[in-house]
Amino acid sequence: MIAEEIRTQQQPGLTYAQAGVNIDAGEELVRRIKPLVRKTFNDRVLTDIGGFGGLFDARFPEMKFPVLVSSTDGVGTKIKIAIEANRHDTVGQDLVNHCVNDILVCGARPLFFLDYFACGKLRVEVGEAVISGFVKACAENNCALIGGETAEMPGMYSGADYDLAGTIVGVVERERMFRRENVAAGDVLIGLPSSGLHTNGFSLARRALLSRYTLESTPKMLGGETIVDALLKIHRSYLRPILHLLETFDPAKDIHALSHITGGGIVGNTSRVLGEGLSLSIDWKAWEQPAIFRIIQDAGLVPEEEMRRAFNLGIGLILIVSPDRTSAIENALMECGEKPVRIGNVVRA
Amino acid sequence: MIAEEIRTQQQPGLTYAQAGVNIDAGEELVRRIKPLVRKTFNDRVLTDIGGFGGLFDARFPEMKFPVLVSSTDGVGTKIKIAIEANRHDTVGQDLVNHCVNDILVCGARPLFFLDYFACGKLRVEVGEAVISGFVKACAENNCALIGGETAEMPGMYSGADYDLAGTIVGVVERERMFRRENVAAGDVLIGLPSSGLHTNGFSLARRALLSRYTLESTPKMLGGETIVDALLKIHRSYLRPILHLLETFDPAKDIHALSHITGGGIVGNTSRVLGEGLSLSIDWKAWEQPAIFRIIQDAGLVPEEEMRRAFNLGIGLILIVSPDRTSAIENALMECGEKPVRIGNVVRA
Repeated sequence: MIAEEIRTQQQPGLTYAQAGVNIDAGEELVRRIKPLVRKTFNDRVLTDIGGFGGLFDARFPEMKFPVLVSSTDGVGTKIKIAIEANRHDTVGQDLVNHCVNDILVCGARPLFFLDYFACGKLRVEVGEAVISGFVKACAENNCALIGGETAEMPGMYSGADYDLAGTIVGVVERERMFRRENVAAGDVLIGLPSSGLHTNGFSLARRALLSRYTLESTPKMLGGETIVDALLKIHRSYLRPILHLLETFDPAKDIHALSHITGGGIVGNTSRVLGEGLSLSIDWKAWEQPAIFRIIQDAGLVPEEEMRRAFNLGIGLILIVSPDRTSAIENALMECGEKPVRIGNVVRA
Repeated sequence: MIAEEIRTQQQPGLTYAQAGVNIDAGEELVRRIKPLVRKTFNDRVLTDIGGFGGLFDARFPEMKFPVLVSSTDGVGTKIKIAIEANRHDTVGQDLVNHCVNDILVCGARPLFFLDYFACGKLRVEVGEAVISGFVKACAENNCALIGGETAEMPGMYSGADYDLAGTIVGVVERERMFRRENVAAGDVLIGLPSSGLHTNGFSLARRALLSRYTLESTPKMLGGETIVDALLKIHRSYLRPILHLLETFDPAKDIHALSHITGGGIVGNTSRVLGEGLSLSIDWKAWEQPAIFRIIQDAGLVPEEEMRRAFNLGIGLILIVSPDRTSAIENALMECGEKPVRIGNVVRA
């Protein structure tokens, strides 16, 4: 066997860097984020950064029937606002919190998260800010950031554009899952406030708002806040209040279902947990919508029905509970600083 | 409480559809892919499509210490070739197989996969073809497709562009993991053939090739095959041959490490499993490189070193094994139709 060591060849010709892919920038980014990412690790993480796969202890001796719950998501065109505003430290938090909520409505707590970050040209500072957002939210949600992919794709993303996707994996004891078959006519819908648009409706919001405002505009109704600040408000995680509830209440009995209000709005998302013959009755005046929604509606003359389909309108998570447990659940939610609102009922269709 | 049912309002004004997001197309896509996706389910999948999270049985009673192994990836700018050629049924397979290999090198077999599909304008046929690719490869790798996100992002992806990301989660018994600490000077590198570029080096390949050829060109060296056929060859999964090996050989003893040859090439990827003081000696003439690599190099005058850094050059997976087990392992690989090649050794640095 004739062995030949790699050597640097000083030939002319096309290199990867000239084709728009900067391997050195990728390596610099990995070097910077390593210590950050490692902060999210706990003793169940069996890996270090840089391996081919992220390793996580899958023993759940305290559970009879552990169920893995997973979800993949993006942040939609909220990312366009972040890019236009050159603020990159919040979209990672949006994405993690969105994913946390998606599995939380199955009763699951987060175990680990993996990210995908794709751009046209890798700017190390931007990548670092984005991933710092992942790290911050992962730490807040007791979730290990155990993997990710940074893709530099010249010709796919133009200018400073980039896109994000994230995947979360969590776990729940099977008999501690919510049972949507318990949902019945008469059940009460308890809404928890959103922080703003969260991560849905941004294509409509941008189109409506930017016909009248700039990102830096401060319409009177926002009380001094800029459009961009209102839009970039971070998607809330509901992990803490729901975990607090689950300490006291039985998810298989007291709480019939949860719904995370994303694309499709309050009705679109909450209908997903309804059985045959059931429908929702929403009291749309039961809570005050954050001003940003009215501003979007006015700027774009958006029909009310369209607003309700595209936006959460101020309610980010809904609990469906039996009437006799409603007050106790509301009290428990208030104990941890939440402001629950009764926003309607399950009714016969 | 004044309840108000949703009603269709015939107001003028901006709708989500006018802002470029077609919720109906998204729903039509979900309707079409549901029966396909369900084909990948097995009795460990505890979910149906359309929930907020994918549910998977996490009991591994046959294992002493189950370890979850996960990986997120994309297909890089191979996707540009698929889009330009209007062939969308292979990139999903590329992505699943890539992910399968990434966890396979930790010894893990796949459990489930989740996809992210983002586009500027959702074309149902394209989405269906892409997801059919996920389904096909998931089925081939005994992997359930339990979740995904389809994102229509007007203004982010132009024209027919779209991007994909995927996340795989698999499992391995801890004591059946490869132990890279066993890698020692003298170990033999056994390479398994790739089908072509797999999913790496496409930015360089496109830049080099499209200066001289079109996608439909048939350079003599390809023996009648078109450039696009050579480029879109599906990233191989090495699951079958490696699972076959693991039936006979002890991954903690007989096979010291595996390396999946992605961005960074043979040396870049295989070096990741080497301990301090070890290096690789590669016999670059030990195998015949697929013609497409020579065509890329010639068209772009790409320096040899750059070729080795950007491409797999015909070797998609490498096993690092002790010299006394090499023949037996090669024989086992040949039993299941593989063509293993001794491509070098581990040496003292």
